[in-house]
Amino acid sequence: MARISIVGLGLIGGSLGLALRRAQVEHELVGYDVDAQAARAAQRRGAVDRAVGDLGAAVDGARLVVLATPVLAVRELLAALGPLLAPGCVVTDTASTKTAVLRWAAELLPDVAFVGGHPMAGKETSGVAAAEETLFDGAIYCVVPPPDAPPEAVATVADLARAVGAEPYFLSAEEHDSYAAAISHLPFLMATALVSTTSQATSWRDMAALAASGFRDASRLAAGDPVMYRDICATNREAILHWLDRYVDALGGLRALVAEGGGELEAAFEQARKARQDWERRKRERGQEAAGPSPRFGERLGHLFLGGLDRRAPR
Amino acid sequence: MARISIVGLGLIGGSLGLALRRAQVEHELVGYDVDAQAARAAQRRGAVDRAVGDLGAAVDGARLVVLATPVLAVRELLAALGPLLAPGCVVTDTASTKTAVLRWAAELLPDVAFVGGHPMAGKETSGVAAAEETLFDGAIYCVVPPPDAPPEAVATVADLARAVGAEPYFLSAEEHDSYAAAISHLPFLMATALVSTTSQATSWRDMAALAASGFRDASRLAAGDPVMYRDICATNREAILHWLDRYVDALGGLRALVAEGGGELEAAFEQARKARQDWERRKRERGQEAAGPSPRFGERLGHLFLGGLDRRAPR
Repeated sequence: MARISIVGLGLIGGSLGLALRRAQVEHELVGYDVDAQAARAAQRRGAVDRAVGDLGAAVDGARLVVLATPVLAVRELLAALGPLLAPGCVVTDTASTKTAVLRWAAELLPDVAFVGGHPMAGKETSGVAAAEETLFDGAIYCVVPPPDAPPEAVATVADLARAVGAEPYFLSAEEHDSYAAAISHLPFLMATALVSTTSQATSWRDMAALAASGFRDASRLAAGDPVMYRDICATNREAILHWLDRYVDALGGLRALVAEGGGELEAAFEQARKARQDWERRKRERGQEAAGPSPRFGERLGHLFLGGLDRRAPR
Repeated sequence: MARISIVGLGLIGGSLGLALRRAQVEHELVGYDVDAQAARAAQRRGAVDRAVGDLGAAVDGARLVVLATPVLAVRELLAALGPLLAPGCVVTDTASTKTAVLRWAAELLPDVAFVGGHPMAGKETSGVAAAEETLFDGAIYCVVPPPDAPPEAVATVADLARAVGAEPYFLSAEEHDSYAAAISHLPFLMATALVSTTSQATSWRDMAALAASGFRDASRLAAGDPVMYRDICATNREAILHWLDRYVDALGGLRALVAEGGGELEAAFEQARKARQDWERRKRERGQEAAGPSPRFGERLGHLFLGGLDRRAPR
């Protein structure tokens, strides 16, 4: 039986395994995690058919290897995988930044078909215990091929995205990292700064009692995995600083309007409100289209990961 | 039959009416809104027994008047209510800032028992169509009496809080406004600045497609009512600027750590994560205690708004 290997059995790796099981892919799912306890937990949850304690055994004979770890661990894995992979194996990852990952793949696995991936779904909880087979349903799944990627490898990763319920979205590593800095990494820093500011205040005990859904949502990302975000900051520094500076500029603009107390403040609020409502409406419309298992995927299930399938042109 | 008047039939006023109906209070609920269409919609939804088109008729003979409008409208109402209220009537509000409201009440209604209120619950949607009878279940309801408030009036507003499923929380106007600035008004400005920054970027179309649950939560408050937030900023300027400056300082600290790339960044993330997780755990524990209708309230239902009930000492 053909084999898919998932390396890193946390929230994302575990959820990918559960979603692939749900999709009834005709492949054996083999898992590996440096944390043997996490690996056993993933096997118990049915996220993989079997978890093995050795990276070489985990990827042995695999058609597809998915690296579902924080960014810097991806680098170590790419350095180790070279001699372990079967010919024709496609390697992808799920890490939060893509420029560094593609550079490392080109350096460390020059003869392997590597296509970056990043499912735009997550939770503030981590670990396989938090994994869900529905985590990627209706989500955008960034597919980030290097310029010279074999089309079959790109199609395989796009099929992986569809198999787990997501929609493949093709873009370059630089585009991905800039957009992710703005809509994901910056919001994490915002939440972290909010929690730092409030929780270190002398009145935190009372503030914490009063804090309700607004604070909950504004601070949620601060509960994310510190190692994952450390790696994100280390590998996407320029883009993050760029968007952070723009954001602080925007706060400065609002500060001036609050201090001044004129009618422009309401206009600024109205403008942001409209943009937020437009975004949510478009998301909802797209979500309704994407709801339920994709019939197109069902029809093609038997061919999964054989390549050459309904390849969408990168956009 | 004794009467409760709700002035302002939007999300909060409508939800208060629905929650009071659910509690089967033995009072007629009379509603008023400057927007006659909103008033009719509230009556159709059963949030009030009847909506009237005139403020005087709405508060005529009421034992309790609840002003559920944005802050600046509260001032206008306080100025108009004086000659309209029955002797012994208790007036409260639900506005987002309390120092200005208490000052206005003392100036404009010196002979009326006014006790400020602020239920710490809301949604980014507004209007009576978004109202829910469960909106306040388990929520903290700030009860903010002026120093000279009659104990019966304080007890009445605390009973209102319990009747709608919330927990009264006593504090001063200055405390309220400082805490609310940190955990509510600042998060609104954060969300607004994020939406401004991203939605005005040339790459917004692609970013919007990639934006997922992290962005959704970080930006949610930006969809709030611009008039409500304009009024909040106008009446809580000092506290908002204070917390905004501390927040920008915290962002600056994180920026330096990102730029520098050392191990301190992970420690800062870990610290914020722990504070956020602690907050959420305490909220969850409290929520489980507060789940379901309060038996204490049920026993005392017949006495509601008669004052002198189980008065908790202000803390």
